[in-house]
Amino acid sequence: MKRSLGSKTLAVPSPIWLIATYDANGRPNFMTIAWGGICSSQPPCVTVSLRKATYSHSAIVARKAYTVNIPSSSQVAEADFAGMVSGRDRNKFDECGFTATPSGVVDAPIINEVALVLECKLIQTLEVGIHTMFIGEIVDVKADDAVLRDERTLDMQKVAPILYDASSRSYFGVGDGLGPGWEIGKAIGKRSLIASPEKTE
Amino acid sequence: MKRSLGSKTLAVPSPIWLIATYDANGRPNFMTIAWGGICSSQPPCVTVSLRKATYSHSAIVARKAYTVNIPSSSQVAEADFAGMVSGRDRNKFDECGFTATPSGVVDAPIINEVALVLECKLIQTLEVGIHTMFIGEIVDVKADDAVLRDERTLDMQKVAPILYDASSRSYFGVGDGLGPGWEIGKAIGKRSLIASPEKTE
Repeated sequence: MKRSLGSKTLAVPSPIWLIATYDANGRPNFMTIAWGGICSSQPPCVTVSLRKATYSHSAIVARKAYTVNIPSSSQVAEADFAGMVSGRDRNKFDECGFTATPSGVVDAPIINEVALVLECKLIQTLEVGIHTMFIGEIVDVKADDAVLRDERTLDMQKVAPILYDASSRSYFGVGDGLGPGWEIGKAIGKRSLIASPEKTE
Repeated sequence: MKRSLGSKTLAVPSPIWLIATYDANGRPNFMTIAWGGICSSQPPCVTVSLRKATYSHSAIVARKAYTVNIPSSSQVAEADFAGMVSGRDRNKFDECGFTATPSGVVDAPIINEVALVLECKLIQTLEVGIHTMFIGEIVDVKADDAVLRDERTLDMQKVAPILYDASSRSYFGVGDGLGPGWEIGKAIGKRSLIASPEKTE
């Protein structure tokens, strides 16, 4: 028997991402979000949802681009900070000790100190409740060698992404590997075939 | 200097969720997805992206409802299995040893053996690349007492959600707590105020 917790955003694990943009003066800024996720494999697309009131919202609308910078556990204080103050009246890059480089492929900055970055071109915008959902095509992904296992595979323990839990309003790290996809589930099918041979007839 | 990894869905951490639906015969089924995320706080809404070819796609379109069942690390084999086979020709509930209860609030089943479930009413549908993105309003959240810290707060180590990394096509667990939101970032602002007192003028 399950307990009702009400109508809440308890979709764990939610990601903690830093969305970087250029403002109207060409100044780099970023904000922290937890509302987003992949929405298509081909072309690779990712959603990020921001309230209209945020400074970054107008920047995405104007430049039609943003980068998703995926901070590591060691940057959780910076991520928390960047979700509490606005780029309207603060220079979050300076305050976090971060620096920016223009993405070569979209009209948005990359945070140099964040090891994994998705460079996104805005392709669709949708209003959902109090948020605007931006759908971005992931034009390229850039990563520091330090978080790679080989030329194209991430080392998740080194990327060390941050998870958000809306119920406790707190952050968590990534844990141990649980096994390979399209592999560890094969045991379930076999188990069931053994238990119910008639299903194979 | 960052290395280019190409146009890829490397938006870690991606969640592993079991999307449960009723098919045209009223039979409960579920499939595993990694493409989804919260897209609005008010009303609480979540996106899930499925290819049109999946059996669950037609079920969501017909019933305008689904549940997001958040499996724990101990259910990773079942989650992997349910992403490899189709409910068209397999009974995934039986094969995984799972049972279904009708959600009292939306026209979809809940997986009893999964401790945390979001009950969603379809409110919008959008085609994005090869996927259909379904936007569901989270009408209610149900949880087993075993994964709660108190009447309304999750215990993340007990929920133990599964993360997906598309680069290694493998699964990871949740790690240690990293601190409270709207709190640990305050040190950044203070540090910068001390370093740059002129900013307060």
